[in-house]
Amino acid sequence: MLASAPAADPTSDAFNNDCPGRTVISHIASRWGILVLAALRDGPLRFSAIRDRIDGISEKMLAQNLRLMVRDGLVDRAVEPTAPPQVSYALTPLGDELTVPLQGMLDWVALRAHDIVAAQDRYDRSHPAG
Amino acid sequence: MLASAPAADPTSDAFNNDCPGRTVISHIASRWGILVLAALRDGPLRFSAIRDRIDGISEKMLAQNLRLMVRDGLVDRAVEPTAPPQVSYALTPLGDELTVPLQGMLDWVALRAHDIVAAQDRYDRSHPAG
Repeated sequence: MLASAPAADPTSDAFNNDCPGRTVISHIASRWGILVLAALRDGPLRFSAIRDRIDGISEKMLAQNLRLMVRDGLVDRAVEPTAPPQVSYALTPLGDELTVPLQGMLDWVALRAHDIVAAQDRYDRSHPAG
Repeated sequence: MLASAPAADPTSDAFNNDCPGRTVISHIASRWGILVLAALRDGPLRFSAIRDRIDGISEKMLAQNLRLMVRDGLVDRAVEPTAPPQVSYALTPLGDELTVPLQGMLDWVALRAHDIVAAQDRYDRSHPAG
């Protein structure tokens, strides 16, 4: 899908607007989408537990991201028969599979975060605001 | 950085709002950020060539994404001494390194795009609008 020549099959060419992979990328490849998948990696969690795990996420953003990922078949929503009923979320086998390449990207970010912050500092010193 | 217990060092815990990795994730993990990095994977390109490669990106979004990635140290901006001067963009060694885990994620999306579209169809049939 990343061949430098445009692929014949638009469904496998992420550069093409009509590629279904584009939609998927836009759901996964959001700051919150990645963190929601990562939060569920170790097992099912209730809505409130995901919210508490991800510093700074609003309930609205979390609900929106979960809905998209349930629709994509990456996350399962289950209503527990408790009183009051509790809603919990878990990765599907498809979502679980995605955590493997996702982890590769997060590991890289963790490894290089300091290099990137240093680059940002250099940039900001050579591009003063105003 | 994805251990289930909060990490002691906030700089390596993506769940923490103060983690520098969070900022990096928000630059890379955007639909356009991923596609810009992927477009540059095979070599330097001029602004107009990147725009043409990525179906549907606006010049404004492309300029914004490139500026963030230059600041992050992932992309180099070079002014070619032609008349008129041309601006070209290339991955830095750091940006090039990132394309490895990124490719893993894009390969997965290409492999599973049809499963995800099928899940979306199932969801939409069982959640009719209105």
